[in-house]
Amino acid sequence: MAKRSKVNQRQRILDEAAKLFKEKGFAGTSMRDLGGEVGMEAASMYNHIKSKDEILESICFHVSNTYISQLAEVEKMDASYTKKVETLLRRHVYLMIEDGAAVSVANNDWKFLTGDKLIQFKEARKRYEQGFATLIEQGVAAGELQPVNVSVALFTILSAVRWVELWYRPGRGISAQDLEQNIMTILLNGLAK
Amino acid sequence: MAKRSKVNQRQRILDEAAKLFKEKGFAGTSMRDLGGEVGMEAASMYNHIKSKDEILESICFHVSNTYISQLAEVEKMDASYTKKVETLLRRHVYLMIEDGAAVSVANNDWKFLTGDKLIQFKEARKRYEQGFATLIEQGVAAGELQPVNVSVALFTILSAVRWVELWYRPGRGISAQDLEQNIMTILLNGLAK
Repeated sequence: MAKRSKVNQRQRILDEAAKLFKEKGFAGTSMRDLGGEVGMEAASMYNHIKSKDEILESICFHVSNTYISQLAEVEKMDASYTKKVETLLRRHVYLMIEDGAAVSVANNDWKFLTGDKLIQFKEARKRYEQGFATLIEQGVAAGELQPVNVSVALFTILSAVRWVELWYRPGRGISAQDLEQNIMTILLNGLAK
Repeated sequence: MAKRSKVNQRQRILDEAAKLFKEKGFAGTSMRDLGGEVGMEAASMYNHIKSKDEILESICFHVSNTYISQLAEVEKMDASYTKKVETLLRRHVYLMIEDGAAVSVANNDWKFLTGDKLIQFKEARKRYEQGFATLIEQGVAAGELQPVNVSVALFTILSAVRWVELWYRPGRGISAQDLEQNIMTILLNGLAK
């Protein structure tokens, strides 16, 4: 019970940190700001986390590990390339809906990572983008997808969903499911009938 | 001849300023930096421009006026809604290809505009987004476009092309025409066959 509570406290600190970093940036957020949000003295927070850098690492690698494991699952699916691309994209959008603040920090504040962590994060991002691109490439080669330039398709698709973490909140007049479905419709079937 | 040369000098200052603001941000660029790029003493530049603020205004309103006039032309077209949306989107992308630095400044540094200029710029952006959304809405109502949520479609499409100004350079292995065509294929026809 004590253990579980400690895990929960750590997660609560990470969640509040993601929101603050999103709002004020990593550089603009102090441990004191964070303590204020969590309702804890800065000194007490160090029972749960090592440093502001360690918080940033946890958030960024939570996001990149999730993307990488989603990719690995999709790569193993026994399905058409169209279905694989759709599934990967759906999960990509879902993470933005469910964990928008963390995704925003991983997108914008990763550059404050240092040393090996910075290298590992960039490698993870490259692995994800290359894996995503490979699925598109295979889909084009198999004649399932339109014969587009793979880099253009990858960047257009990943860029197309970047606004979700900034805009989407429950109560914006559209459910998460409908949002996801609308995006799939536009990117996979196209806006024109 | 002297008049024309003065116009050219002014345009050259604006072009170099857009590149510098894109690279270092409006706040991070000094008139001295700009003079260095243009090859002119800061004092001489004031024969052509009033201030750093005026340069930012010129760049931002060049972009927003172009968008607004493109919208106005498309609204007057005698064509299907699908064709209108396609034309507006093509011109939107074309401006990013042709004038990427200025578009980037208008996207990122508009918040340094002040007073009436800030209000006018926000109004122009709203006018453009609403006009674009209305074309989509009319296309959906006419049964030409997929029955998507109009806000989701607008943000997905405008977000989808945001990477172009950051990424595209001639020599990236794809011509401007092919890039534009690829983006139209994905957003209007969809990636899936």
